[in-house]
Amino acid sequence: MASDPAERAGAVLEIDLTGIVANWRMLAARVEPARCAAVVKADAYGLGAAQVSAALVAAGCRLFFVATLDEGIALRQALPASCKIGVFNGPVPGSADEFLSHRLIPVLNEPGQIAEWTTITARRGGCPAMLHIDTGMARLGLTLREFEGLVAERRHPTRWSALISHLGCADEPANPLNEIQRARFVSARHQLGDPPASLAASSGIFLGRLYHFDFVRPGAALYGVNPQAGTPNPMNQVVRLKGRILQVREVDRGDPVGYGAAHLMEQPGRLATVALGYADGWLRSLSHRGSGRLGGKRVPLRGRVSMDLVIFEVSGVDPSLARPGGYIELLDDDYGVDAAAADAGTIGYEVLTGLGRRCHRIYRGMPDRC
Amino acid sequence: MASDPAERAGAVLEIDLTGIVANWRMLAARVEPARCAAVVKADAYGLGAAQVSAALVAAGCRLFFVATLDEGIALRQALPASCKIGVFNGPVPGSADEFLSHRLIPVLNEPGQIAEWTTITARRGGCPAMLHIDTGMARLGLTLREFEGLVAERRHPTRWSALISHLGCADEPANPLNEIQRARFVSARHQLGDPPASLAASSGIFLGRLYHFDFVRPGAALYGVNPQAGTPNPMNQVVRLKGRILQVREVDRGDPVGYGAAHLMEQPGRLATVALGYADGWLRSLSHRGSGRLGGKRVPLRGRVSMDLVIFEVSGVDPSLARPGGYIELLDDDYGVDAAAADAGTIGYEVLTGLGRRCHRIYRGMPDRC
Repeated sequence: MASDPAERAGAVLEIDLTGIVANWRMLAARVEPARCAAVVKADAYGLGAAQVSAALVAAGCRLFFVATLDEGIALRQALPASCKIGVFNGPVPGSADEFLSHRLIPVLNEPGQIAEWTTITARRGGCPAMLHIDTGMARLGLTLREFEGLVAERRHPTRWSALISHLGCADEPANPLNEIQRARFVSARHQLGDPPASLAASSGIFLGRLYHFDFVRPGAALYGVNPQAGTPNPMNQVVRLKGRILQVREVDRGDPVGYGAAHLMEQPGRLATVALGYADGWLRSLSHRGSGRLGGKRVPLRGRVSMDLVIFEVSGVDPSLARPGGYIELLDDDYGVDAAAADAGTIGYEVLTGLGRRCHRIYRGMPDRC
Repeated sequence: MASDPAERAGAVLEIDLTGIVANWRMLAARVEPARCAAVVKADAYGLGAAQVSAALVAAGCRLFFVATLDEGIALRQALPASCKIGVFNGPVPGSADEFLSHRLIPVLNEPGQIAEWTTITARRGGCPAMLHIDTGMARLGLTLREFEGLVAERRHPTRWSALISHLGCADEPANPLNEIQRARFVSARHQLGDPPASLAASSGIFLGRLYHFDFVRPGAALYGVNPQAGTPNPMNQVVRLKGRILQVREVDRGDPVGYGAAHLMEQPGRLATVALGYADGWLRSLSHRGSGRLGGKRVPLRGRVSMDLVIFEVSGVDPSLARPGGYIELLDDDYGVDAAAADAGTIGYEVLTGLGRRCHRIYRGMPDRC
C-alpha cells in the first residue's frame, strides 16, 4: 500500500552513492600522488551532503569543501573528527569565532577576512586557514596586487594550510587563460614559501599533472557531470529521476496542450501527464524541448512545463506501459544531467542543484557506518 | 556576533506574511460572494506552506490546496481541524486510504482515480472528493468524453464537494480559449446537477464575475506575481532577497570576469562578489542580464552566475556602501519576482519556487496563533 512514501510519491530521485564513490576513486587514482578532496557544497550539488560525505569517508576521503559557514556547521555534525572541512566563502565580518568553535577551516579571500582571522586567532598562536588568490576570474580571492602587499607586509599567519586558486575556463583545454592562471599560481606559491597548493576542480584535473599540485577539489565530476564537454564522459551517471504518470488521455489533431495553448497537436495521439514540474527542478526552459523515456522509447515533452506537472506524448508507446501509476524515466544513464542541461540551455551543475526539493529520494550503496 | 544565523548568512530571504494576507483579503473582497481559497502547493510557491497557511487561517481562509499527497499530509499537521485541504493530483494507485486517514480531499482527475475512490469509500457511504474536468488544457482532469461517460453511467458519488477546471490562458484576457473553457465548464456543471464549482486561479479572478463561480483558487497572486501581465500589478510584493557582499575588488579594462571569461571589463571599475548563486535559486539565465540595487542605484550583474556566487559591478556606488559584509538587494518592491523573471526569460512562478533553499529566511507578520 501507499504508506510507503516511495509508493505514493510523484517523483523519485535515486542517488547512486556507489557511483559517486567510484567517480571519486577514479579521480583520486588519476591524480596520485596528489590527494583528492571532495566538494559537497550546495548540499552536495543537491544530492545530500550528509549521505554523499559518509560514503566518501568510507572510501577514504578526508578533506571536504562547502561554500558557507552554515553548510560547514551542518557537515561537521555528520563527519568523523578526523575529517577536515574547508569553507570557500570564508567568514563574513564577525563570524570568525564560529569557524573555531566548529573546527572549520576558512578559505580567506580578501584582506578584511585575513585581518579578522589573524586578530582572532593570535591568542591561540594561529589556526589553520587556506589562502585563496584570484589568478584570472575576478570572483573570489586576493587580487595579485593585494597578494603582493600581503607578502611584503608579512602580517599573514606564518603557515597557511594551503594556497588555492580557481580556474575560469578549465572546461576548455585550449583556452590560454588556463596556462596564464597556472603560471600566476606557481609564482605566487613560490613567493609564499611553497605551502601546500590546490588549483584544480573537476575540469582542471583533466588538464594534466601540472595542474594537480598537492590536492584537487572535484565537485561536479563526482556527480556525473562531464568535466570536458565535447569528449566522451568518463564519469558514472549517479542520478536517476522518474516521474509518476497521473493520467493518460486521447487527444485530437489541433488540441491545445498546457499553458498558453503553446503546443497544438499535429496529429491525434495520447498524452501522459506526469507529477513533476519546475518546482521539482525540472526546469521550465525544458518546455517544448525536453523528453522522457518509457519502455525504451523516447517520449517528447509537449507544451510548457508547469509548476507541478509536465506532459509527454506517448502515442508511440504500448498502452499497457503508458498508464496511471507507471513511471516515465527523466534522467538515466543514457540521458543524464548534461543531456537535460543541453535541452534546457544550461549546464549540468544547475540541473543537479535544482533537483529533488519535492522528489522522494532513494540512496543506493549507503555505507553501514562512516 | 555571528551566532545569529541571519548575521552569518550569505543570503537572506524576507517573507512578508502581512503582505500575503493583504493580497488574499483583496482577492477575497473582489470575488465576494464567492469564497476565496488559497493554493499553497510547492511549499507555498517556495515561501513556506506552514507559515503562509497559518497567516491565512488567522485571516479567515478555510480552504487550502496542495499538489501532492505528501504536501497534504504535512499541511494537515499545521492546520486546525476546521480547515479543508484539497489535493490537486489526487491519489496515485493504491494511495486512496491515505487521503481518508489524513482527512484530505482528493481532486479526482481520471477514471481510474474515480473508480478507486468510489470502491474504497463505498463502505463509508462516500467521502468528499472534487471532480476535475479538462476544458481545454489537455493536462489534468477528465476529458469531456470521459465526463459524458461518467454522467451517463451514474457510477460516480452522488454528491461532489466541487467541480473544478483550470484555465490555460487566463493571463491573456483576450484569448478566446477563456470563454470556450468557461462555456464547457458551465455546461458540464449543469449536467452534474450544479454542484459547487471553481474555475479561476489567480489570473482567472481578473477575467470578471462570470469566472468566479462558488470559490476561486489563487496561488501566484498571493505571492506577488502579477495576475495580468502588461497591466499595473495590483498585488503587494511579499519577498525581499538580499545577498551578502563577500569581497570588493578593483579591476582593469579588459579583465575577464567569472566562468568562461564570458565578460570582459570595458572600463576599469569595481566588482562586488555576493554569496548567492543558482544553487540559491538565482537562476543561471540571469547571467549578464540581472541586476541588484545598492544605495538606491542599480548595479549590473557581470559575467555568469556561479553556483554559490554572483558578481555585480559597483563602480558607480559609494565605496562605503560597497564593502564586505554589506548587502546587495536582489528582490524588493521595485524589482520584484516578475522583473527578475523577465530578465531570466521565465515567469515569476519559477523564480519564487526556486528561492530560498539555502537562504536564511525571516518571516514578517507571523500571527501569534492560528
